Amino acid sequence: MTPCDLLIQCRWCIPVAPSGTVIEHAAIAVTGERIAGVGPRAEVEAGFSSETVVDLGRHAVIPGLVNAHGHAGMTLLRGAAEDLPLQEWLSEVIWPLEAANLSREFVRDGTGLALAEMLSMGITTFSDMYYFPDEVARCASRAGMRAEVAFPVVDFPNIWSRSADEALHKGMALHDEYMSDSRINMVFGPHAAYTVSRGALEKVAMYAEELNRPVQTHLHENAAEVAEARSRVGQSWIYYLHDLGLLSPALQAVHMTQLTGHELDLVALHNVNVIHCPHSNLKLASGICPVERLTEAGVNVALGTDGAASNNALDLLSEARLAALLAKQTGGDTTRADAPSMLHMATLGGARALGLDEQTGSLEPGKLADIVAFDLGAPRFVPVRDPVATLIHGAPAGAASHVWVGGRCLFDDGAYTTLDIDAIGARAERWRDIAH
Amino acid sequence: MTPCDLLIQCRWCIPVAPSGTVIEHAAIAVTGERIAGVGPRAEVEAGFSSETVVDLGRHAVIPGLVNAHGHAGMTLLRGAAEDLPLQEWLSEVIWPLEAANLSREFVRDGTGLALAEMLSMGITTFSDMYYFPDEVARCASRAGMRAEVAFPVVDFPNIWSRSADEALHKGMALHDEYMSDSRINMVFGPHAAYTVSRGALEKVAMYAEELNRPVQTHLHENAAEVAEARSRVGQSWIYYLHDLGLLSPALQAVHMTQLTGHELDLVALHNVNVIHCPHSNLKLASGICPVERLTEAGVNVALGTDGAASNNALDLLSEARLAALLAKQTGGDTTRADAPSMLHMATLGGARALGLDEQTGSLEPGKLADIVAFDLGAPRFVPVRDPVATLIHGAPAGAASHVWVGGRCLFDDGAYTTLDIDAIGARAERWRDIAH
Repeated sequence: MTPCDLLIQCRWCIPVAPSGTVIEHAAIAVTGERIAGVGPRAEVEAGFSSETVVDLGRHAVIPGLVNAHGHAGMTLLRGAAEDLPLQEWLSEVIWPLEAANLSREFVRDGTGLALAEMLSMGITTFSDMYYFPDEVARCASRAGMRAEVAFPVVDFPNIWSRSADEALHKGMALHDEYMSDSRINMVFGPHAAYTVSRGALEKVAMYAEELNRPVQTHLHENAAEVAEARSRVGQSWIYYLHDLGLLSPALQAVHMTQLTGHELDLVALHNVNVIHCPHSNLKLASGICPVERLTEAGVNVALGTDGAASNNALDLLSEARLAALLAKQTGGDTTRADAPSMLHMATLGGARALGLDEQTGSLEPGKLADIVAFDLGAPRFVPVRDPVATLIHGAPAGAASHVWVGGRCLFDDGAYTTLDIDAIGARAERWRDIAH
Repeated sequence: MTPCDLLIQCRWCIPVAPSGTVIEHAAIAVTGERIAGVGPRAEVEAGFSSETVVDLGRHAVIPGLVNAHGHAGMTLLRGAAEDLPLQEWLSEVIWPLEAANLSREFVRDGTGLALAEMLSMGITTFSDMYYFPDEVARCASRAGMRAEVAFPVVDFPNIWSRSADEALHKGMALHDEYMSDSRINMVFGPHAAYTVSRGALEKVAMYAEELNRPVQTHLHENAAEVAEARSRVGQSWIYYLHDLGLLSPALQAVHMTQLTGHELDLVALHNVNVIHCPHSNLKLASGICPVERLTEAGVNVALGTDGAASNNALDLLSEARLAALLAKQTGGDTTRADAPSMLHMATLGGARALGLDEQTGSLEPGKLADIVAFDLGAPRFVPVRDPVATLIHGAPAGAASHVWVGGRCLFDDGAYTTLDIDAIGARAERWRDIAH
């Protein structure tokens, strides 16, 4: 009998790997920040004992969800502009609001609000691309969450950098600073091919390869962007990034709603990761990422919420549900995007996109104890025949009951252990009536 | 100062009529089963006083949601068959499960579960089409909810009727029985043009007109159904129903994902009501109801959850959110299906479809006090700039805090006042492992 630090007993355990497995009446043993054992309760409890036992008799337990794309600071802009034409939304509301209000405090308050929301949704790892990435990293680190911080690289002067060169310089300094923090990954975040010069993108490609770091960028979000590429560089942005050597397994291409057959082949050939943000794409009428065509071609697809200004929730299971519904309808085939595939996309697929799939994304001995529980006892889930489908299709917004990151409980039966939720709410409210 | 039975104070009141109105720091006065006053708190409290005051300082208060199409009994079949081809789903799982298990107890237990879920989602009025409509009416009446019970008319013998004639006979007897129950409306529910003979549909048309009662039917759910019509009756089902005199303001046409321009004109000309069930339609890869084309033509559109076997939640605000996203994307226009229009569709549009818009669907003096409150204080809603958009796009599943139907509180800060939720859950669980 090996002592361990924590035993979680649950009605259903869905480890994601091996795929398709559901263990009823299961237990998970945690030692330090890692999983020591997973399996039927009798088996696990024959091998492990702990003074700390959490009994979740009505719950499904899954790997922590991975939100592979977002802008946490923008949570303060939730609802600031609804139902406007896209260009007006951006140039007359979002950008002026940012220009007039962005500050380190704005990012701190918005990120705090986003962390609270994401934890309540069962997200343990998130990727973020926004100004003051050092502040985002600090907030995530203090809260105990796992984060990929994509420091923003853009040509235009902004509150964090006067030029792309300065952004690269500051970002790489942050990368060094966070080398020793195992939960924070600093990666390159060139905003988009249309906002970063060719020279700066070449530097991103070079440095990212030298440092062996991922690169996240917005790519082919909508048809206007692709049309602009043809007039500006004579080819689509995907071909353009290919010429720059940026198509690789290190690339996280966000949105990708527009894809010709040849572009899809190129993406598959270079093992690019695609981040699908269905709510934001529909709300901004940008298009629909062809998830089924991509997965059939062997491309890894992850899910992202994008920012709350265009969503308006940071609810990854809701993204998985919408992605499944869209794939069924656009494919004209109800068997597509089945619930286990979508849960994989929301967990291990996300971890793989972020280069973290050897560490998190599934419940397996040796992996980090990033674990989430959902109480499936509410009337809207009953009767639970298929807990995977219940999670994906059962509208579980805000339903996570417990969240552990690296074995540490950050959300304990609805209560935050590292966040002062009242202070976060009060600080967020102060930004409600900002003007541009 | 007029005494009243209940004063509800709230942060935001969204009465739906007049359209586009949001009253901050509002109050609603209720006398008996009706609304006596609505407006800014100071104004209402200058006119009305009550010993019962409910203070909802972080809440948005709206008219009760109207779920215009569902099969409450089928809530017991939630998750029974996921990700199967449509025909296999129906003929190898759902129908055999019903054939082997349907009984009065099944309908009672499934309806009880559905009522509990719908109340928690803020639904005060629902339409239902299922076997044992007398049991559905009894459950709704006991729970205090408002229901349109569309008694099912089909040719094939089933557990409730041996023939369409018997179904009509039993249904009209029920209509007489419930004449004096102001909360229960018995209406005609011919299942679909392809399951009811021409002769029986002619009788439905005749009796419905004589009794001045609505008719609800599934119509143009998917392309296969329309193709079948051409081979069976030489025209689409919409033209076929038109020939039978069934296109009228009394008709509630459910689904309508396939519509030619001429069919749409016909629907508009006859003021047919259309019930849009977006989650079910996408999950079964049936198509997308052209909401924008319909509303531009002046057609009243309502929302329905359909049954939990194809959804899997009875969450009307989630239907409104998905309907908005689909309209924006398919129209290529972010200004379409704005949040106030979608809230109207989920409330007053539903009431109008059910012929109840003079009684419910908006918060106006003289109307029934069907009132719902949502607590918008959770991190996922903050900051609330636009409470209407927050409700539609903020993923509020299960978030209703208070529900009143006809002035009676049925859901009091998350607690059911007329339903024994533990007994309902236990009874529902007993049907989990049924086989066919």
